[in-house]
Amino acid sequence: MSATPGRVDTLIHPRWVVPVIPHGVVLEHYSVAVSGGRISALLPRADAGGIEADEVLELPGSALMPGLVNCHGHAGMALLRGYADDEPLMPWLENHIWPAEGAHVSEEFVGDGAELAIAEMIRSGTTTFSDMYFFPNVVAALCQRLGMRVQLTFPIFDFPTAWGQNADDYISKGLALRDDYKHSDLVNVVFGPHAPYTVCQENLAKIATLAAELDAPVHIHLHETTGEVLAAVEEHGERPLDSLYRLGLLGPRTQCVHMTDLGDQDIALLAQTGASVVHCPQSNMKLASGTCPVSALLARGVNVALGTDSAASNNELNLFSEMQTAALLAKVANLDATSLPAAETLAMATINGARAMGLDDDIGSIETGKVADIIAVDLSGPETQPVYNPLSQLVYVVNGSQVTHSWIAGEMVLRDRELTRIDLTDLSARAATWQQRITATRDAAQ
Amino acid sequence: MSATPGRVDTLIHPRWVVPVIPHGVVLEHYSVAVSGGRISALLPRADAGGIEADEVLELPGSALMPGLVNCHGHAGMALLRGYADDEPLMPWLENHIWPAEGAHVSEEFVGDGAELAIAEMIRSGTTTFSDMYFFPNVVAALCQRLGMRVQLTFPIFDFPTAWGQNADDYISKGLALRDDYKHSDLVNVVFGPHAPYTVCQENLAKIATLAAELDAPVHIHLHETTGEVLAAVEEHGERPLDSLYRLGLLGPRTQCVHMTDLGDQDIALLAQTGASVVHCPQSNMKLASGTCPVSALLARGVNVALGTDSAASNNELNLFSEMQTAALLAKVANLDATSLPAAETLAMATINGARAMGLDDDIGSIETGKVADIIAVDLSGPETQPVYNPLSQLVYVVNGSQVTHSWIAGEMVLRDRELTRIDLTDLSARAATWQQRITATRDAAQ
Repeated sequence: MSATPGRVDTLIHPRWVVPVIPHGVVLEHYSVAVSGGRISALLPRADAGGIEADEVLELPGSALMPGLVNCHGHAGMALLRGYADDEPLMPWLENHIWPAEGAHVSEEFVGDGAELAIAEMIRSGTTTFSDMYFFPNVVAALCQRLGMRVQLTFPIFDFPTAWGQNADDYISKGLALRDDYKHSDLVNVVFGPHAPYTVCQENLAKIATLAAELDAPVHIHLHETTGEVLAAVEEHGERPLDSLYRLGLLGPRTQCVHMTDLGDQDIALLAQTGASVVHCPQSNMKLASGTCPVSALLARGVNVALGTDSAASNNELNLFSEMQTAALLAKVANLDATSLPAAETLAMATINGARAMGLDDDIGSIETGKVADIIAVDLSGPETQPVYNPLSQLVYVVNGSQVTHSWIAGEMVLRDRELTRIDLTDLSARAATWQQRITATRDAAQ
Repeated sequence: MSATPGRVDTLIHPRWVVPVIPHGVVLEHYSVAVSGGRISALLPRADAGGIEADEVLELPGSALMPGLVNCHGHAGMALLRGYADDEPLMPWLENHIWPAEGAHVSEEFVGDGAELAIAEMIRSGTTTFSDMYFFPNVVAALCQRLGMRVQLTFPIFDFPTAWGQNADDYISKGLALRDDYKHSDLVNVVFGPHAPYTVCQENLAKIATLAAELDAPVHIHLHETTGEVLAAVEEHGERPLDSLYRLGLLGPRTQCVHMTDLGDQDIALLAQTGASVVHCPQSNMKLASGTCPVSALLARGVNVALGTDSAASNNELNLFSEMQTAALLAKVANLDATSLPAAETLAMATINGARAMGLDDDIGSIETGKVADIIAVDLSGPETQPVYNPLSQLVYVVNGSQVTHSWIAGEMVLRDRELTRIDLTDLSARAATWQQRITATRDAAQ
């Protein structure tokens, strides 16, 4: 599949390669070479004998695949994992999450939370994540330091929060951050208007203009619940998706997150405009928000990616678990076992996420010339035996703990399950300290 | 909670004990003592200083809880994990599973498949499983050898299979097996009529009489799909559950597996008769069979337990993953985030399973005097930090890979993630050989 190169940085010999492109293909006894941060060769192992490499890895029981792309989350909230469960969206936010955030969110909180989130994501196979939270500057610096790829969606609200005063302030801070990282290979700063019910239409129109000028993605919570849609119809006389369309905010750069309440006309509008949908099944189930009609969207050609949402509403940041849930949920929701088969689910968690972020020329599949964002998944344990088809194992069995190695831009960030750039002992101690502080504040208020 | 005993076999000092009974309780800095296969003390660590033990385990980041009870499966089918996916129940059975079984099921197949299943189950926290498959004699001997607790439901059909000729033959073999193991502490042999559509009403009535005489549990696939219920109404003029009731087969010893198609009158009948329901959410979702109305059943006081079904239709035998799916599915199915909270889900996977099997005097909770079926779950990893409430982590985050230790009847079967009685290298080689044989047969037939 490529001319044999000269000496390379890394040469990997797995049992299987799951390249994602071409769709549904599994290559057995193929090898992957990495050079200068990119995939320099994908070829039969029998033809790889002449390649010299600084490091050679034999992974005889593993599948090599593109790193997973987590298209929606709030990394800093990892410190609120399990803080409140089994409550609907609004009471959960108003009685638990917002008070805790109000008391504690700071640069330090966001940095520690995001590092905890990144540790979990790398250990479960994610190599790119989208983030929307306060102090994105802290997360940008952190990702640069840890070698993690991120789409940083700077948050925009109409009202003050810990990070800004009003929409103009958020936008100006966000664009300055975008400018700071314009030469970064890892950090991509994009617009993150929180939702149509927290950003007024005038500001949404302003964001539409700016995003078009900069050709920058826009990431927004949309149609998360039927209640949200009904309230918008009451207030504006139209569904939120229609408002976005009218305001010029719906196009191929738009990432619509959640989308549980969708009619045929909504799906047609998404297909027509080329907007992407980010499906977050575990969060939508846990908060009882509803079910995104993934199969209907895919049937109309809409690009559907996958996200975990935050650890406060999931409670994990594990795209392998999310893939399993997405596939099972689609089947039972449609009462059709052929819905969302394994290969399609795997595409959602990789190339579709890359496409939503506009990064599909670089990531989302194992192809010669692409950036080397790659993971190795060990299928030799009893849980994943026997292997008739590795795609089945990857979607229906693997839970993240089988991810042994991970490379981001060719740099190894996970080696034999060990994080190469994060000190877990120190990180756990910081997480425990936050738990004590946050619990103490809550107890004092009661 | 108990008088301090003298010298004990094992003394465990975890960070938390989740006893399941009392409901929802978490004990911090408690210790558990095990003697003669039973829990001899559960007491504050501060009071455990005087206890001498042959082995003392310090588990400062772990939660100790009762081993999980997997109430439905077909262990031997682990060799068909991922053999065919993304197909509805009947084509999946008729075109894939039954032909493969017809060609390969033997004592050797069942033994190797069940050992693979047991390895996976122990590593993911299960200490008791229910099994319904051919050659239960092989599984009985295997469980005795491996120290695994099993409810062995000997299969009954009207027609011949690899293990028997007709209902009388199955019953006579099954009762002989029950007799062989009547003194076993680990193996409990009970009736397993496959389903109302594979066992005629005359034979079901016979089983009802025998089960009542022996006070033995009856385990049966029931209302797995709406199609099954409609076909029964067509043939018998009544719903399968009503047939069972009329035939005297519905009572506190009955375990009704699947139950996706249930009306109010069905739920009332289950509540009235004291029958248990075994919920298998992942299998029901994957085969698009439907959704068991768990919350409505629990609200009426029906005992609902949890099962994985086989690795061929799930594709994992992991009750932690099943708990997460059960909780999330109930919330979105009811559009109510308060449905199936963490503590209730944990009860389903432990004490409710024990109750369904009639074993709740011995297992399903950590209480002084009960049999020591116990697991330790390490919550110190980044995925499970911070810990506000261990119940939340156990249901919404833990995926089985955090189970470090497991004791069955006080015997350690998992130590620091290593199986003490199973040679995984040898087992994996056998699984791979079966995969090659089964694939070769399939390819030859095509």
